[in-house]
Amino acid sequence: MSFAPLQNDTFLRACLGQATTHTPIWLMRQAGRYLPEYRATRAQAGSFMGLATNVDYATEVTLQPLERYPLDASILFSDILTVPDAMGLGLSFALGEGPKFERTVRDEAAVAQLAVPDMNKLRYVFDAVTSIRKALNGRVPLIGFSGSPWTLACYMVEGGGSQDYRAVKTLMYARPDLMHRILAINADAVAVYLNAQIDAGAQAVMIFDSWGGVLADGAFQDFSLAYTTRVLGQLKRTGSDGAVVPRIVFTKGGGLWLSQMRTLDCEVLGLDWTMNLGTARAIVSEGSGAHRKSLQGNIDPNVLFAPPEAIRAQARAVLDSFGAPHMEQDKPGTGHIFNLGHGISQFTPPEHVAHLVDEVHAHSKRMRTGL
Amino acid sequence: MSFAPLQNDTFLRACLGQATTHTPIWLMRQAGRYLPEYRATRAQAGSFMGLATNVDYATEVTLQPLERYPLDASILFSDILTVPDAMGLGLSFALGEGPKFERTVRDEAAVAQLAVPDMNKLRYVFDAVTSIRKALNGRVPLIGFSGSPWTLACYMVEGGGSQDYRAVKTLMYARPDLMHRILAINADAVAVYLNAQIDAGAQAVMIFDSWGGVLADGAFQDFSLAYTTRVLGQLKRTGSDGAVVPRIVFTKGGGLWLSQMRTLDCEVLGLDWTMNLGTARAIVSEGSGAHRKSLQGNIDPNVLFAPPEAIRAQARAVLDSFGAPHMEQDKPGTGHIFNLGHGISQFTPPEHVAHLVDEVHAHSKRMRTGL
Repeated sequence: MSFAPLQNDTFLRACLGQATTHTPIWLMRQAGRYLPEYRATRAQAGSFMGLATNVDYATEVTLQPLERYPLDASILFSDILTVPDAMGLGLSFALGEGPKFERTVRDEAAVAQLAVPDMNKLRYVFDAVTSIRKALNGRVPLIGFSGSPWTLACYMVEGGGSQDYRAVKTLMYARPDLMHRILAINADAVAVYLNAQIDAGAQAVMIFDSWGGVLADGAFQDFSLAYTTRVLGQLKRTGSDGAVVPRIVFTKGGGLWLSQMRTLDCEVLGLDWTMNLGTARAIVSEGSGAHRKSLQGNIDPNVLFAPPEAIRAQARAVLDSFGAPHMEQDKPGTGHIFNLGHGISQFTPPEHVAHLVDEVHAHSKRMRTGL
Repeated sequence: MSFAPLQNDTFLRACLGQATTHTPIWLMRQAGRYLPEYRATRAQAGSFMGLATNVDYATEVTLQPLERYPLDASILFSDILTVPDAMGLGLSFALGEGPKFERTVRDEAAVAQLAVPDMNKLRYVFDAVTSIRKALNGRVPLIGFSGSPWTLACYMVEGGGSQDYRAVKTLMYARPDLMHRILAINADAVAVYLNAQIDAGAQAVMIFDSWGGVLADGAFQDFSLAYTTRVLGQLKRTGSDGAVVPRIVFTKGGGLWLSQMRTLDCEVLGLDWTMNLGTARAIVSEGSGAHRKSLQGNIDPNVLFAPPEAIRAQARAVLDSFGAPHMEQDKPGTGHIFNLGHGISQFTPPEHVAHLVDEVHAHSKRMRTGL
């Protein structure tokens, strides 16, 4: 496949720790329910999965936020749970509720039936990636993604969201052998899945370890981090066009484990708002350049409910907490990609997002020129 | 008032960093729905608040777990939200649901009406403290408690529990002046409330900052930690019997801020399971003895769903992660109080708790004798 050349490579440069003219910004769930045009398309599609599995709809909604805001990256419109759906667990989304699986994986028999799914069942995702990449026409890079092995396991065992993770943690503590088996299959499936997204045109990939932060110290390393490592070890380093494909790992609530995540074989670590970006930068900059990382994050999405001037002040505070941008042309450093620390709320006023994007661009340019 | 002399002071000694013969253990929400005898008493009382406001019932359920397990401390049966209830917000608990307030505090007018409540409205709490202390007859110490100013504010603004804290964070980012006013009143109210519990017989007090961990770095320091500090500065240091009353601060999800919480004027910091206890001990032991702290925590309550041998192994792992117990008789060190990192689940098999308590006692004795 051949695609149009990239016009705005700021996001990819920041991922790779190269100097940029401004701090790039994109928003988790930027194509989502806070946009009236998204709600209109979803109404046409009839359901969330109707939207995600239709290439034209998925392309349309992925591009919607780019029409409104000068964002520096786009992200495939899909869900983190497509892989277990392809394993046959039966994913659905009731209106206004979270994801549900028809079948759960809680015992030896259910685990024995699990396998890396046939990627043909996920063809709709790869087709969407190619379609979106074409439609972007080089405006900004396209990010592909998946849930992490642990996060997928949470939903597979619980059958949906959970307040206390009782079922998945009971299985983990009572039958660690079964949990390791689930996670190994998930890791291999996620790797094949992300590689197929890269082949289809994804220019960066992100692993959402949305529930890694609910694990105890020790359990996180054994049941989440080890399997994220297993995914990363299998990922392609370049796309079909030969360009390096940066890999982003985001563990919600994972700030305490940053010094361990620092050694992951990836280019970017995502952070939520509980972690001070300056502290995080110092941690990932320790020692040699072998583990060079950029950081992505981390404003609280609830900031977007405040008036514009407060949003702008908080955006500046996040940029300032990261500190002086990396400016050396010849040597990679710690890049910063501005993002939320969690998906944008469906109740966000769309016009507030414009203020955030504008302030990140304007203030980060000022930080570079010293004005 | 005069009370029977204390027979088991292990918990208080550990709070104060004194050497102990074993690691004391108690469990957050140890008097709760997982116990059939608790459910029977609650059924008699008709409602949660019917239980909490009746001195005899509150005394009965507080002592129930002590009849089953050799726990090293008891904690007043009450709720973290009694103070805003006394402010007139109308607290209730629907069966199987969380707390609800009839009235919320979301605008200037509602904030203007807030004041430190008349402590006579909380007389039922102080009467329960005295009644429980008498009924304990010196078996183990009695812990009093309150929600933190920030955690109370979350419920007061949201009107109940929340998934995203949208209302309280919107107020915080949009009208920080109003939020500071709420927090100042809450802090002064909590201080008066805890002092009255101390006067009534509480031998230690704990501040539950259950929702501090949802705040962004920066916001945590300004809107939670500053007001916990304001409470601590007003607390009595000794009870009516002249004994020192240790103060415990527990911020769920606060591990990232431990180096700042270390300077709080309190004796014990509570930790959840995400924080490595050995790392935490190193952080609170840094520098001079001026900030000496003991640590409380931090096993994942979901461990209690595993079979007994797995529970025992996880209990040993937590004790071992804290490391060698403080053994010097003449010099205070970092004590450890074993606890869960969150309240015990209502679905916990009661017989599993016996295994946890037994293993903590047995293994921590072995750690002291080197056997």
